[in-house]
Amino acid sequence: MRPTPPDRLHHGVAWYPELWPAELIDRDLAEMRRLGLTVVRIAEFAWSTLEPAEGAIDCTFFRHVMDHAQAAGLRVVLCTPTATPPVWLTHGHPERLHVNAEGAVMGHGARQHVCYEEEAVRRHCFRIVTAMARELGRHPALEAWQIDNEFKCHVAEDFNPATVVRWHAWLEARYGSIERLNAAWGTAIWSQHYQRFDQVPAPGRTPFAHNPSLLTAYRLCNRELVAEFMDAQSALIRAHSAAPITHNFNLSFALNFERMSRDLDFVSWDDYPAAADWHRIVLHGDLFRAAKPGRPFWLMETSCAHNGWLDEHAVTHPPGFLRAEAVAAYALGAGAFNYWLWRQQRTGCELPHSGLLQSWGTPGIGHAEVAAVEAARRELEPLFTTSTPAPAEVAVTWSDRGRAMLQTEPLRGGRGRALDYTAIITEWHRRLVELGYHRDLRFEGAAPDGLKLLITPAMPAVDADFLARVRPWIEAGGTWIVAPLTGTRTPEHTAPTDAGLGALDALAGVESVFGFPFTDTGALGGAFGLTTALTGWGLALRPAAGTKCLGHIHGGPADGLAFLTERALGRGHIVLLTVQPEGEAASALLDRLIRHCADRAGIGPVLPARPGTLVVPRRTREGEPLIVALDFTGRGGGVTLPAGLTDALTAQPAPAGELTLAPYAHRVFRGRAGQS
Amino acid sequence: MRPTPPDRLHHGVAWYPELWPAELIDRDLAEMRRLGLTVVRIAEFAWSTLEPAEGAIDCTFFRHVMDHAQAAGLRVVLCTPTATPPVWLTHGHPERLHVNAEGAVMGHGARQHVCYEEEAVRRHCFRIVTAMARELGRHPALEAWQIDNEFKCHVAEDFNPATVVRWHAWLEARYGSIERLNAAWGTAIWSQHYQRFDQVPAPGRTPFAHNPSLLTAYRLCNRELVAEFMDAQSALIRAHSAAPITHNFNLSFALNFERMSRDLDFVSWDDYPAAADWHRIVLHGDLFRAAKPGRPFWLMETSCAHNGWLDEHAVTHPPGFLRAEAVAAYALGAGAFNYWLWRQQRTGCELPHSGLLQSWGTPGIGHAEVAAVEAARRELEPLFTTSTPAPAEVAVTWSDRGRAMLQTEPLRGGRGRALDYTAIITEWHRRLVELGYHRDLRFEGAAPDGLKLLITPAMPAVDADFLARVRPWIEAGGTWIVAPLTGTRTPEHTAPTDAGLGALDALAGVESVFGFPFTDTGALGGAFGLTTALTGWGLALRPAAGTKCLGHIHGGPADGLAFLTERALGRGHIVLLTVQPEGEAASALLDRLIRHCADRAGIGPVLPARPGTLVVPRRTREGEPLIVALDFTGRGGGVTLPAGLTDALTAQPAPAGELTLAPYAHRVFRGRAGQS
Amino acid sequence: MRPTPPDRLHHGVAWYPELWPAELIDRDLAEMRRLGLTVVRIAEFAWSTLEPAEGAIDCTFFRHVMDHAQAAGLRVVLCTPTATPPVWLTHGHPERLHVNAEGAVMGHGARQHVCYEEEAVRRHCFRIVTAMARELGRHPALEAWQIDNEFKCHVAEDFNPATVVRWHAWLEARYGSIERLNAAWGTAIWSQHYQRFDQVPAPGRTPFAHNPSLLTAYRLCNRELVAEFMDAQSALIRAHSAAPITHNFNLSFALNFERMSRDLDFVSWDDYPAAADWHRIVLHGDLFRAAKPGRPFWLMETSCAHNGWLDEHAVTHPPGFLRAEAVAAYALGAGAFNYWLWRQQRTGCELPHSGLLQSWGTPGIGHAEVAAVEAARRELEPLFTTSTPAPAEVAVTWSDRGRAMLQTEPLRGGRGRALDYTAIITEWHRRLVELGYHRDLRFEGAAPDGLKLLITPAMPAVDADFLARVRPWIEAGGTWIVAPLTGTRTPEHTAPTDAGLGALDALAGVESVFGFPFTDTGALGGAFGLTTALTGWGLALRPAAGTKCLGHIHGGPADGLAFLTERALGRGHIVLLTVQPEGEAASALLDRLIRHCADRAGIGPVLPARPGTLVVPRRTREGEPLIVALDFTGRGGGVTLPAGLTDALTAQPAPAGELTLAPYAHRVFRGRAGQS
Repeated sequence: MRPTPPDRLHHGVAWYPELWPAELIDRDLAEMRRLGLTVVRIAEFAWSTLEPAEGAIDCTFFRHVMDHAQAAGLRVVLCTPTATPPVWLTHGHPERLHVNAEGAVMGHGARQHVCYEEEAVRRHCFRIVTAMARELGRHPALEAWQIDNEFKCHVAEDFNPATVVRWHAWLEARYGSIERLNAAWGTAIWSQHYQRFDQVPAPGRTPFAHNPSLLTAYRLCNRELVAEFMDAQSALIRAHSAAPITHNFNLSFALNFERMSRDLDFVSWDDYPAAADWHRIVLHGDLFRAAKPGRPFWLMETSCAHNGWLDEHAVTHPPGFLRAEAVAAYALGAGAFNYWLWRQQRTGCELPHSGLLQSWGTPGIGHAEVAAVEAARRELEPLFTTSTPAPAEVAVTWSDRGRAMLQTEPLRGGRGRALDYTAIITEWHRRLVELGYHRDLRFEGAAPDGLKLLITPAMPAVDADFLARVRPWIEAGGTWIVAPLTGTRTPEHTAPTDAGLGALDALAGVESVFGFPFTDTGALGGAFGLTTALTGWGLALRPAAGTKCLGHIHGGPADGLAFLTERALGRGHIVLLTVQPEGEAASALLDRLIRHCADRAGIGPVLPARPGTLVVPRRTREGEPLIVALDFTGRGGGVTLPAGLTDALTAQPAPAGELTLAPYAHRVFRGRAGQS
Repeated sequence: MRPTPPDRLHHGVAWYPELWPAELIDRDLAEMRRLGLTVVRIAEFAWSTLEPAEGAIDCTFFRHVMDHAQAAGLRVVLCTPTATPPVWLTHGHPERLHVNAEGAVMGHGARQHVCYEEEAVRRHCFRIVTAMARELGRHPALEAWQIDNEFKCHVAEDFNPATVVRWHAWLEARYGSIERLNAAWGTAIWSQHYQRFDQVPAPGRTPFAHNPSLLTAYRLCNRELVAEFMDAQSALIRAHSAAPITHNFNLSFALNFERMSRDLDFVSWDDYPAAADWHRIVLHGDLFRAAKPGRPFWLMETSCAHNGWLDEHAVTHPPGFLRAEAVAAYALGAGAFNYWLWRQQRTGCELPHSGLLQSWGTPGIGHAEVAAVEAARRELEPLFTTSTPAPAEVAVTWSDRGRAMLQTEPLRGGRGRALDYTAIITEWHRRLVELGYHRDLRFEGAAPDGLKLLITPAMPAVDADFLARVRPWIEAGGTWIVAPLTGTRTPEHTAPTDAGLGALDALAGVESVFGFPFTDTGALGGAFGLTTALTGWGLALRPAAGTKCLGHIHGGPADGLAFLTERALGRGHIVLLTVQPEGEAASALLDRLIRHCADRAGIGPVLPARPGTLVVPRRTREGEPLIVALDFTGRGGGVTLPAGLTDALTAQPAPAGELTLAPYAHRVFRGRAGQS
Repeated sequence: MRPTPPDRLHHGVAWYPELWPAELIDRDLAEMRRLGLTVVRIAEFAWSTLEPAEGAIDCTFFRHVMDHAQAAGLRVVLCTPTATPPVWLTHGHPERLHVNAEGAVMGHGARQHVCYEEEAVRRHCFRIVTAMARELGRHPALEAWQIDNEFKCHVAEDFNPATVVRWHAWLEARYGSIERLNAAWGTAIWSQHYQRFDQVPAPGRTPFAHNPSLLTAYRLCNRELVAEFMDAQSALIRAHSAAPITHNFNLSFALNFERMSRDLDFVSWDDYPAAADWHRIVLHGDLFRAAKPGRPFWLMETSCAHNGWLDEHAVTHPPGFLRAEAVAAYALGAGAFNYWLWRQQRTGCELPHSGLLQSWGTPGIGHAEVAAVEAARRELEPLFTTSTPAPAEVAVTWSDRGRAMLQTEPLRGGRGRALDYTAIITEWHRRLVELGYHRDLRFEGAAPDGLKLLITPAMPAVDADFLARVRPWIEAGGTWIVAPLTGTRTPEHTAPTDAGLGALDALAGVESVFGFPFTDTGALGGAFGLTTALTGWGLALRPAAGTKCLGHIHGGPADGLAFLTERALGRGHIVLLTVQPEGEAASALLDRLIRHCADRAGIGPVLPARPGTLVVPRRTREGEPLIVALDFTGRGGGVTLPAGLTDALTAQPAPAGELTLAPYAHRVFRGRAGQS
């Protein structure tokens, strides 16, 4: 598909005119315009304003707000308010509320406290959404819709009986007969055997752990249900409105991002990184760019200065960081960079969160930073609306099922550490960033087309569909690195019975000899002339003829076997890394492994850069390269320029050689360099 | 008001004659007399002895006990036993039980397990109290009543439906109409909006935090309800008895101490400090002396050697500490120094708590220490029954509402630390003790009369009434130090919308420019030639003309603004300290700030003293000064005496110069020195 | 009683043929035979296989399995499957489920989730057990029965109303009248007083701790109930089957091991020690050998390589450890050494646990280790089926009531550490192992016959029956060391009222002067020329005339009194150690104390051995000594041999002097040496 640049670079803010005196509306809009903002997001928590008593729906206030926004020249993202049902919907109705895994029933007063599978909740949600779509869906100020707000914020799987009913239906649809479920999950174990679907429990309190097949299935089911609820809202809106529809994801929530993205027109994400966590901006950009390939995403919420709520404060941003965050987001494919929130809350539990204005109306500590963002945005808009991020040749797989399976089975990496899927992906992604490669995340369900190198860590179940996409791609020249914990389980969250890694044993030309936890066994791994400790659950391999051993195990109970192998397959390669290296030399070993594969594939860094300098290659619609370089350390950065580049902002030639970047500063170049 | 010394210095003990064979009563009383004890406290857990079956109330046993106490010459504090309802009151009646915030229903077997708002509980409580008052309220041995025992010991806010009904009534009485509540709390946020008072939830389980306005209101309401329950008991007693009424507070419980003290005749407190925590004795003395100004308080419970229950032991006191604790308590205004308990429990969960006697009847490890206390008491009684603690010129504000608000919003002080109201007050109070100033705590609702310097930390809401008392006092010459986190919220626990510190901005002659968390922003504070880190939520100020900047912010996002200002107001001064200094130089900076204000106001230490030597000034009825000096370190202490003092115990002249105190020893002097 | 060696040394494995295709049964059995295994354990979780729908009991499958085992020459341990009731027993029946102390109701999906006191559960359990006994109880392959599996695995006391009804009956049977209960528990305290047995609560949620008398009684009652349920199953089986009956204990579960063992034919235990925790093998061997004195016990479950479940891995065994574990178990009295499990699970929550085979059918990482065990077993079988462990002369008391009381009252040992009964016993036992003494554990209810030295730590209640057994044994020459926390409570979990240690004061010739927590008081203990800190709750003693003070207290509030005394009693001695030594010299002091007593009693090490070398003396049926020596460090060990020994495996003379053991290697000698 051909990538589409955004029409413009939006710069916006979440706005709650319903919480302040009406006379502030125009003053706020004027001040937003002065700052250069282009878009406001409204109404995501405003159900009680729209429908103060059951059935008394009235969209007048928000039509008024949108009229004035239109008059002021601001676009509007209109949200459905289903994250915060009014008190009349839940008071006296415990059966409508979210129930957590311990059986605790949530109450009114915060958000995400209802069960969307409950019939009355569902009916009321759909009624307010329909009314908003009908009343406001053709408003000229309407830029886009946002469904609900941060689904599963603060909550995970739901245990309301209404959800359990859906669970039974979901199981029946998936397995057809109870005996197929029993066989798939092996329920003869511990006499778990079910006679009917309605006996299958939601995984609540038990003396010990549930069957992982059930645990993972319950996660997948819940994530499907919330996606269906979102899609149902979208369908209602589309009957009345042509505006595109999005949802603002948060990477830490219990969702299936790939599935959720399917029916959205574009994706958005929220993140509140402190300056030290700038890598998260890159990770989110690379992941959500991949959710709707070729289309801009939005950064829907970030803080202009600091996050905060009743019992925690984040660190206030250092001057300059916000602009760097915005430039990185736009460079990586964002069509909008939006703050939460316009004016510091007067009431509620987020009083200490920074606003562009303070509760008493004066500019907050981040206000000047926003102005700096706006200056950069204006400067970059001509470049970024005529170009898109360059396609990447290397990617890390993102598997929502893999994430669910690691939540079910957080196999310790040794010394008490539970494994976290996102942390594992982050580590591989960060390694690519630090090596200077332009990269993507690639969803499990997406084809590896266009890539030269794909790294797949922590995806326990490698299913036949995935292999059917990856195998021909390898044979056509791709290199697939199968990283630790990938292939160790079936899609039903059971252990493979054909081989240690199921079909991968044969594909990668190995025999999985022993699977066991390597931590503290004394086993060392040697590869590329480096030796490291090995840790966590791993497999000791015996390479078949024609398969190279790249890494040997020394010591411990599997002494002499391999933990790192490589096999040529057609014009490509499959590399197995079956145990996690750990300790001092581990990082170097993993870097060497990636370079080994990348070099052979002809992948190199975009530009030589100092650590903490982000380099993003883009392509103009005409196919010419642009390179964005950006210091994210706050101490200044630098890149080494080849000859022949031009500064895209000044149109001056950029001299070859080392270029220094001031703290948090960015530069954009035209011309070809390295992999760009 | 003119202060009243106690008629005598009581020395007493909690006694449970109902738990031991009747023949021990006289033996116990005789042994108490031998030790010199003057008072016993009885019956606070004895409801099942008084009313073994529903309605079968019989006070004979305790009349017998009081008769024998009277015969033995001991006075009696008689308690209402409402902390421990008998099993017949709650068995089969879950609706009568305390429910905590997670919805867990407490059961019979410990104490404080009922809901005092429940109709049957209330009726039974009032019946037993009335019966006791009628039967025993005129007994000649009766010294005082204690209502219940340590209200809210082990429990906090109650979520029993009966309490929720009272909550709704409390809200209606406070706000009049639901729309006034909605406006005050800003419930349009997150669609919290209420249509009727009965919809307002008690703040139970929600996916995320409740509205702080609601959280704080629920705390205030619960604390009012328990005060009303206590007052109702007092009213029933007063119909039959002229003995004064008290309650034994514990500073860590969920109570409003100022409100609770209102209707009591005198206040009492319980504390079990280990020797290392001796400062707590001073804090409690200074706080509860202020609860009923001019009247003696009682230390109702402390351990003679060590605290303990089923799964914890406190550290056993070192020899000598107990006497120091008693002398300090008496010197600070105690009319009684009482132990918990006479004889180590034979049964129940407090088996390992030290008694004066052991469970097998012999003297316990603290018995000899009690004898030393008694010797000191006899020596000091003539002095302390003719004098009272000198009025203080410097005080720290104690705000029960401020405490509730910090419980709602424990804004982190950085690096994961939650702020604790009592800890903040303790830190300021300890600083005054260490600087050698004689000081008070001053309740929020009390006038600052008599003070020269008032320090108010962590009182988020400064209401109009408070300002109406403080402003004229400043204009008349007082100095008010507004310390961090004071003034940052309204009384409804919302953010101010007029200025960063509400009315304080104008009063203190500043503009609150930016409010944000300073932690880890690199901001430093410079004042009095010292530079420190700044931490926690704070405000960066711009002083108006006529306002002095005493402390500048260096670095970070608010570089160049002020964090410490001073403005003359009439003959006095208002000092704003809007960010918390932290780290090495912080303590010195705060000491310098206090000295800066104290010196100008003419306040100085009572006597130069070594660290850990407590100096307490008193005044005789004739207005002559007494000075008590006491080593609290256990390693010996010392003071520097001016010329002209007399040893009040020996009537010998006390030579000027350095006087050494033996470990835990005390001395009392007559004559004027420093601020005494 | 005369000890009986096992007929053979079994080597076996837990096997789940119901979880795998039927065609694997014969293949599995053949492979087991090839490995040398002799026994399989089956059916402990197979209720749903036996009775897939209510009432449809069919034992055909397991008869088939047993027929094939018989044909293959393997013996069978058949288990009752009551740990895992099928879904039809609990679906829609919350009243049948286990309820924990917080009131949480367990659900289907794991194990141990039902309440065995509930009528329907009980009826169904007894029906399936009866059916199995009738159908399979005379099968020729049947070696033994195992009742249920690891009772109280994952759960502790049950709070299901059906259990509470049994609790009331248990109380009535124990106390006869409610007033005797009230008197025994001292329920006048905190108005706990009960009018009827049915008012006595199970100790659920209360604001503070329950009465310890009630807490301990509830533990004892629950442990009695589970023993009665087990015995009831045994009785049903015995009506149809002559095979011996066992249960597999786990030392960490909420059981009364002495009571449970009473009605079993032999005892079994499960333990999964990592190599570093080898001492646990010795502790379990010594304890469970004592449960059925003179009879072999079984190690029913251990891992061949590593333990694991969904969110934890144990460390994989180093090569050689497994054989050492097996040799130690056999040497200490095991008649069987069995693995959990044959083939790594394909499904369920124990996927990562090591099997002899992997889920894909190939040998696992522990398979070769099992072969090494088998080689050792064959070699040792002739020796160990004609000999038994030598009787020990020194023992540590195991008190199940003491354990329950420490669970009720985990009196801190200082610095926040809760005391754990098993940890205390382990420490004393490990000390004896390290000193090289051959030792036993001795259950509280067993006579001390045959011992020369008995050490009793942490047994708060020393009842009259115990004293009636121990006193004459002392008088006949025994030495009893009463270690800290023994004697400090009555059997009703109250404090003694006659003397600090009740009857022990007089017996040991001391006065318990002060009881208090010694931690951080500065008190030191001096004995045997060594000085150590003293910690935890202790008693300061005054020795009566004729009682020696072996250890004085220096400093702290009990300066000058004793913490270690010795009194001659008849031909024996009673030694009181009433405070726990702690810190550097503590270990040496305790070693000196034990040697002091052991030397006088003529007890010495079996053989001088290096640390980590285990030496086990045995006796042949003819009374000749055998000595097993074994390295447990994995780094090699050694013993010093006297002249005159023969290597029992090679029949060659063993030269006197230092003998080195290879890592994890063992040797067996004939001939007399030291205490063997």
